[in-house]
Amino acid sequence: MIALVIGGTGFIGSHLLDQLVAEGDLVRVLAPDPERFRAPKENIDYRAGTLMDAAALRSALEGVDVVYHLANSKVPSTSNQDPIADIQENLMATVDLLESMRQAGVGRIVFLSSGGTVYGECGSESVPEDHVLQPSSSYGIVKVAIENYLCMFKRLYGLSYCALRASNPYGPRQGAIGVQGVIATMLYRTFRNEAISIWGDGGVVRDYLYIDDLAKGISTAGRAGLEGTFNIGSGEGHSLVELLDVIREVTGTEPGVEFQPSRKVDIQRIVLDISRIRMQLGWEPKVSLARGVELHWLWMQSAIKGGML
Amino acid sequence: MIALVIGGTGFIGSHLLDQLVAEGDLVRVLAPDPERFRAPKENIDYRAGTLMDAAALRSALEGVDVVYHLANSKVPSTSNQDPIADIQENLMATVDLLESMRQAGVGRIVFLSSGGTVYGECGSESVPEDHVLQPSSSYGIVKVAIENYLCMFKRLYGLSYCALRASNPYGPRQGAIGVQGVIATMLYRTFRNEAISIWGDGGVVRDYLYIDDLAKGISTAGRAGLEGTFNIGSGEGHSLVELLDVIREVTGTEPGVEFQPSRKVDIQRIVLDISRIRMQLGWEPKVSLARGVELHWLWMQSAIKGGML
Repeated sequence: MIALVIGGTGFIGSHLLDQLVAEGDLVRVLAPDPERFRAPKENIDYRAGTLMDAAALRSALEGVDVVYHLANSKVPSTSNQDPIADIQENLMATVDLLESMRQAGVGRIVFLSSGGTVYGECGSESVPEDHVLQPSSSYGIVKVAIENYLCMFKRLYGLSYCALRASNPYGPRQGAIGVQGVIATMLYRTFRNEAISIWGDGGVVRDYLYIDDLAKGISTAGRAGLEGTFNIGSGEGHSLVELLDVIREVTGTEPGVEFQPSRKVDIQRIVLDISRIRMQLGWEPKVSLARGVELHWLWMQSAIKGGML
Repeated sequence: MIALVIGGTGFIGSHLLDQLVAEGDLVRVLAPDPERFRAPKENIDYRAGTLMDAAALRSALEGVDVVYHLANSKVPSTSNQDPIADIQENLMATVDLLESMRQAGVGRIVFLSSGGTVYGECGSESVPEDHVLQPSSSYGIVKVAIENYLCMFKRLYGLSYCALRASNPYGPRQGAIGVQGVIATMLYRTFRNEAISIWGDGGVVRDYLYIDDLAKGISTAGRAGLEGTFNIGSGEGHSLVELLDVIREVTGTEPGVEFQPSRKVDIQRIVLDISRIRMQLGWEPKVSLARGVELHWLWMQSAIKGGML
């Protein structure tokens, strides 16, 4: 199989590349920048460019069997500051991608959607895929629109797709000073003996997924003939206070904590129901939170000591 | 009140203008073309332009209390032929409108969404607003995205909004040879003694709303302080075969019928649950299908005889 990974040099893409190469695919990457934490891999065909670069995209699609679309020019907070750019760079660029795939005869796409932003407020139950969608950021609004266009291109043109609504991934090679990745941020601050900021009472609950499990799920979705939208997460909820406990145990350090007022945009609790992907794709998460945080911590210590972080 | 009606010279806009003027508003219109079936009204301030024309829009927003946004550059079928243009001309232009409203200090918008395209397949029950949204056309996908942006602008910036998911409107001054408006098309063909095409077995059920009821609902929503999304329809379902019966009775003519194969995109049945708008806005439909079709038929006969149709 020839796989094209769009946005393949980011945190998730980097692990997907390893997974696809290990499974024997010929792997091509379209991304604007090289990976941050390691040198390019010899057996991967890197192409510089984004989805907005029509010529680079057309060339990258030649002979491809499946496209993995992980690119996003925004995160939720920056998407709200410039929704027009979000629509142009992510929604329109993705619809252009689907048109280009039709023209190039590329028949399948796996799209990385967002379990954390498409549902909105969910209450105390795990949220299944057919839950009402109330995205509260432009980022989530665009993800929902892309899922809908995937469904439309499937119906009108037979373009096969899988949309994966991922929960919060964490693990090695995740940046630690960005705006996403609470586990990375907590570990980084613990290493530097800096206080960890907690918004509200620390009761905010999220679903954290170890990066290797996510990469394996994405490649499984690429190989499967299944259509549709799937949650992909641990299926378990952990509060910020519980994360602090895990970090204390893994690092052997007592992190300082600064409690801050709640942020208006925070959703109190979101945990994904992963029954559908378990049953239909046969995928399930393998790495516990404690083990995943330990692996993340081991990598982070060496990355900081090596001057990479 | 100063009201700006964007897309105010189309079928629905034309009736909304009458309603707003009757209720004493100062009415301004932003639309690219004049009305098709009547001369401009003296007491309305018409401005030539579309949402894409930033200068015309900025000028039209000056001093406005409420915006009624009825403009759409596409219908469902044409939206699928060019989804990129649909996103640019409708989604991006509307997000730009919301930004322009913020800058101009205009605090309220009524947006005409689409009860017929946002839900997808609904089954036999009337569909309430919190039903899952599965739009099957670009038109419907864009409507859903706009609703989500309205909700986001309300939360982030306090911009007050009402989104009205309208069912199928019909009545005087609706075009009869376009791609929307099955009642208009049936009446027109009956007048000309042409056969009426029915796709499938004629069992397709829709919710038809007389245009005066819709116009009254839109103006009521503009005046109300309520936020959110409301279905607006008759709340009743009628099959194509039932429509034929009504037309036979109203016109005193036996229309010819040509049954055609089902179209792939047709949703079998969609009827709106209008409990929310009844209870929260105090609006309800007044004109029965038989009476509405009669009024539509009277207008159409004179329009055809007058050479307007």
